[in-house]
Amino acid sequence: MIFTILDTLGLIAFAISGALAGMTKKLDFFGVFIIAMVTSIGGGTLRDLLIGNTPVFWLLNLQTFYIVTASTIIAIIFRTRLNSFRKSLFLFDTIGIGIFTITGIEKGLLVDLSPIVCILLGTITACFGGVTRDILCNEIPVIFRKEIYATACLLGGTIFFILKFLNINDDFIYIATAGTIILIRLLAVKFHWTLPQIGIK
Amino acid sequence: MIFTILDTLGLIAFAISGALAGMTKKLDFFGVFIIAMVTSIGGGTLRDLLIGNTPVFWLLNLQTFYIVTASTIIAIIFRTRLNSFRKSLFLFDTIGIGIFTITGIEKGLLVDLSPIVCILLGTITACFGGVTRDILCNEIPVIFRKEIYATACLLGGTIFFILKFLNINDDFIYIATAGTIILIRLLAVKFHWTLPQIGIK
Amino acid sequence: MIFTILDTLGLIAFAISGALAGMTKKLDFFGVFIIAMVTSIGGGTLRDLLIGNTPVFWLLNLQTFYIVTASTIIAIIFRTRLNSFRKSLFLFDTIGIGIFTITGIEKGLLVDLSPIVCILLGTITACFGGVTRDILCNEIPVIFRKEIYATACLLGGTIFFILKFLNINDDFIYIATAGTIILIRLLAVKFHWTLPQIGIK
Repeated sequence: MIFTILDTLGLIAFAISGALAGMTKKLDFFGVFIIAMVTSIGGGTLRDLLIGNTPVFWLLNLQTFYIVTASTIIAIIFRTRLNSFRKSLFLFDTIGIGIFTITGIEKGLLVDLSPIVCILLGTITACFGGVTRDILCNEIPVIFRKEIYATACLLGGTIFFILKFLNINDDFIYIATAGTIILIRLLAVKFHWTLPQIGIK
Repeated sequence: MIFTILDTLGLIAFAISGALAGMTKKLDFFGVFIIAMVTSIGGGTLRDLLIGNTPVFWLLNLQTFYIVTASTIIAIIFRTRLNSFRKSLFLFDTIGIGIFTITGIEKGLLVDLSPIVCILLGTITACFGGVTRDILCNEIPVIFRKEIYATACLLGGTIFFILKFLNINDDFIYIATAGTIILIRLLAVKFHWTLPQIGIK
Repeated sequence: MIFTILDTLGLIAFAISGALAGMTKKLDFFGVFIIAMVTSIGGGTLRDLLIGNTPVFWLLNLQTFYIVTASTIIAIIFRTRLNSFRKSLFLFDTIGIGIFTITGIEKGLLVDLSPIVCILLGTITACFGGVTRDILCNEIPVIFRKEIYATACLLGGTIFFILKFLNINDDFIYIATAGTIILIRLLAVKFHWTLPQIGIK
């Protein structure tokens, strides 16, 4: 139940972040909607394709479509206000990443993949939507250049399997995993933690 | 029968439009061929992947490969002439979009997806090839910025299901759907209809 | 046995070439790792998705993950030295292309695809990783602009099926196919063979 609520919140946050990115590029309504859609469902779609879970999740159930559509419309109506609230959006975005890492891991476990592969799958689920958004907007994906992002997912996924190994209750595992990812992201942004750039002169 | 002819025409038109895009970027023969291939089969490939219809259509049947190869060679030979004929090409491109929307919807119905999802799938089939072409050429997909494009597919798909619901004959549904999409596109270009850009200052 | 060794060498070479590309763009560790991963597994992933061979190969076996991780770390540690050795890397890269063309063809044969389609699939397996690397780094894929690259794969694949048709021993076919591709690439680079650019003024 809590899981479903958070999942929906994550979807909404990703949709709004995609819509904002599209509006920054001055796209038309359809373009803004597509970027919002891709940002929120891109990760789960790649996950489903990679494990052969087809038709992919959003084809089987219209709920995702409705949530993204409603979020995009709201983002467009309140675009001026939202833009100055980007910092609070970042919180939703972070919640989304935390949740989507867990859904990716769970889907991997359903088809008997090994823990390391499940963690990769969770990270892909959480991050690929944002990567696609940036490619469509013709930019080098921000995930490759700024702040702790995928690293938080990898660490959260590791916590997930340590707790699983210790036979902890599932609900607690979910909260601890998402909590770890969210906390790392919040701290990373607050204290400007970044991974070092590795350049070749 | 009419369906197969139009489908082939659509494939040819998309291949030529892709080849022109590749030549504008001064790619070599192989590059031009790949862009032509991606433009014409990209949409159907993503559609097949999303619904789990694998191996994807062009792997099972060489006809697509031959059509695209021949179209690319013709586009290269007549490149100077074709370039000044871009306006007539636009008509083929529009026919292609109309037809590919229908094939996408039909494939969705075959796996029992709901009408709204089928319309999305039809739109993806019609539009994704052009999006990939633009990404490979390192540009923001034109579909996000110019003219009524995907919107025409969405409206055509809606007509499709309204007529289906009214139990109209299939052949007529095909003609009405493709006709709607083509008409909207033609009018949109003639009268410079666009969706409003939504920018954040 | 030789096949496995060469396959691993190819994976290593692609991973290093991806890591070098990422470091040139001054990405952080994670970004460099992702580019290395995508470059080495991108082609095989698309191949597996297109033929419906899911979960894709690197989800079922951690070996790929370990090889890419180790290669990336080595590439980062020796980045200054490697960069001046780019010419020797090119040899590995070429070996990788030769091998990956064969694995692509073999996977196609396993699902009974026709020879031409298998050659396309082999070429995709060999080339798509590099294309994705370039898209993620926000450049027009180099494969579309420079040297004989995919053309070498297409020719090698043709040799493969000519020898297969003549009932030659499999080991010899592998060596001849990879040898052809590698030789063409080496000669192309040495003598600056390129396909002609086809531009529209």
